[in-house]
Amino acid sequence: MFRHVVMFTWIAGTTEQQRSDVMAELAKLPGVIPEIRRYDMGPDAGVNPGNHEFVVVADFGTLEDYLVYRDHPVHRDVIQNVIRPIMASRAAVQYELPALGER
Amino acid sequence: MFRHVVMFTWIAGTTEQQRSDVMAELAKLPGVIPEIRRYDMGPDAGVNPGNHEFVVVADFGTLEDYLVYRDHPVHRDVIQNVIRPIMASRAAVQYELPALGER
Repeated sequence: MFRHVVMFTWIAGTTEQQRSDVMAELAKLPGVIPEIRRYDMGPDAGVNPGNHEFVVVADFGTLEDYLVYRDHPVHRDVIQNVIRPIMASRAAVQYELPALGER
Repeated sequence: MFRHVVMFTWIAGTTEQQRSDVMAELAKLPGVIPEIRRYDMGPDAGVNPGNHEFVVVADFGTLEDYLVYRDHPVHRDVIQNVIRPIMASRAAVQYELPALGER
């Protein structure tokens, strides 16, 4: 298993509609990119100060499946048209996730 | 379900031993803090430039269970003695995770 984790902060003036659009457009990707095994996301809960504002956790069978997602044109369109216009900062890690059976 | 995601970069000169110590000490926490339902971590796979270097994804039944983990003295000791000395930057999000049955 291979996991992609990415967090964002948004620029000043980002609207609730723009935040909702990010979630709505990303939520379409599992229906378009079958390599996605599990796809979780959400806005920061506001428990701790200094946090990023939004996170996506995406699981794939392999690194190669993640690359299909990373480079998929529908995903790139969401990044370019919905995320980039409001993105202030981004933090990401991809890492090998033990399969459930190995735990 | 409630998820805590945190990423780090390490200061210049951080050794492999220090990186391994972070994983080894954090790996003890699920045995000490029963509120942890699932605990995944790993170093960045090196696929993309500009990434953070290490990520922890921790799942809890509730926000309150996360707070037990956040404030647990054994966890605070790991942060203070193993993570802080080599930490260059940190990015975190906590968010509500749909229960598996809701997917």
